[in-house]
Amino acid sequence: MKSNVPAVLFDLDGTLVDSVYQHVSAWHEALLDEGIELPIWRIHRRIGMSGGLFVRALAREVGRTIDDTTRARLVRAHAQAYLRRIDSVRPLPGARELLAELTRAHAPWAIATSGGRDVAMRSVALLELSGDVPVVTRDEVPYAKPNPDLFLRAAERLGVAVEESFVVGDSVWDLLAAQRARALGVGLLSGGYGRNELEFAGAYRVYSEPADMLRRLDELGIREA
Amino acid sequence: MKSNVPAVLFDLDGTLVDSVYQHVSAWHEALLDEGIELPIWRIHRRIGMSGGLFVRALAREVGRTIDDTTRARLVRAHAQAYLRRIDSVRPLPGARELLAELTRAHAPWAIATSGGRDVAMRSVALLELSGDVPVVTRDEVPYAKPNPDLFLRAAERLGVAVEESFVVGDSVWDLLAAQRARALGVGLLSGGYGRNELEFAGAYRVYSEPADMLRRLDELGIREA
Repeated sequence: MKSNVPAVLFDLDGTLVDSVYQHVSAWHEALLDEGIELPIWRIHRRIGMSGGLFVRALAREVGRTIDDTTRARLVRAHAQAYLRRIDSVRPLPGARELLAELTRAHAPWAIATSGGRDVAMRSVALLELSGDVPVVTRDEVPYAKPNPDLFLRAAERLGVAVEESFVVGDSVWDLLAAQRARALGVGLLSGGYGRNELEFAGAYRVYSEPADMLRRLDELGIREA
Repeated sequence: MKSNVPAVLFDLDGTLVDSVYQHVSAWHEALLDEGIELPIWRIHRRIGMSGGLFVRALAREVGRTIDDTTRARLVRAHAQAYLRRIDSVRPLPGARELLAELTRAHAPWAIATSGGRDVAMRSVALLELSGDVPVVTRDEVPYAKPNPDLFLRAAERLGVAVEESFVVGDSVWDLLAAQRARALGVGLLSGGYGRNELEFAGAYRVYSEPADMLRRLDELGIREA
């Protein structure tokens, strides 16, 4: 692999599409329907984890156990509530242009998300990408973020070494997973985390949105030979 | 004023009631209806400013001007969209208990919010407080946060010196307004800002939620004589 065109492994929600707040609201609704009251910022800070892990973590925070049936029902209710909000989801500024620039420069890229395939593909569709887009979802790996599996599988899919790839994500879980995969993590503020939260989670660089990353792609040493 | 029972001036949204994300979503809807597309995290980071200032700031970010008629329409549309979401708004954990403890300790307290009176009183009602609650709203001052006016008026209403009061808020705008009022700002994470964002805005202390502040009230030197 040449260092001028490293592979770039992208998270989806909050990184390429502006869907984090709809996911937060959908989880809040699903949890309230089960009688589970949680401050919404705590839900926000868990977005990007696998759904199962997410429910377990929140259950621990409110100090109650949630059985497998309830957990499965919550994950389904969240997906339905998210799809009811998908009309308000937009691509993030510069997302399409950033991916197009990587393609033009022959830098391989893929999308790796903790979401399930059905919902993820609905969000990917909003990017209106042409051709075969490599998307790795929750269904294809044993453990989602903050475990490294999704990014490992994405690198494998592209036929590249994960240790020489960049991982781009908006959440602490992306950056922790990047470290576990021995990739370099690039943080985006577009998921609503503060800059320092991403830096403390090991971000190599932090940009505000895909458009900002595109403008400053030179900082990552990405350019055509 | 005795230093054991300083006055405490509270922000409302994200500080006492868990309503920031509903406000974010309501602004997003109102802006989309006007054809203004903005990444949602940028809306989130402006919540807590006065509505007019908020619209002006966001217009500058997308590089377009918004005339007074449109601005007034946006402010109205946001209020309506928020009220459609108010059924999902809950008091933040420990909010009622914290206010009760201050009352018990004879520490005067008030609420000061950048929101308009009608909407603010709907959110205050969720706290189910008894008696006459001093609430200062946008309508009563020339300039809302980050200007100091709301907190100055709240201190005046209580008959206390603002310089010896604590201001408690979840947003950078509360803490900047606290500094301008020469009060000490206490930050809460419950509005979804990162801890460092609040620290950099001058927070004297940062707690996660009202319940956390209540547990650690000794750190602020608040106790009955």
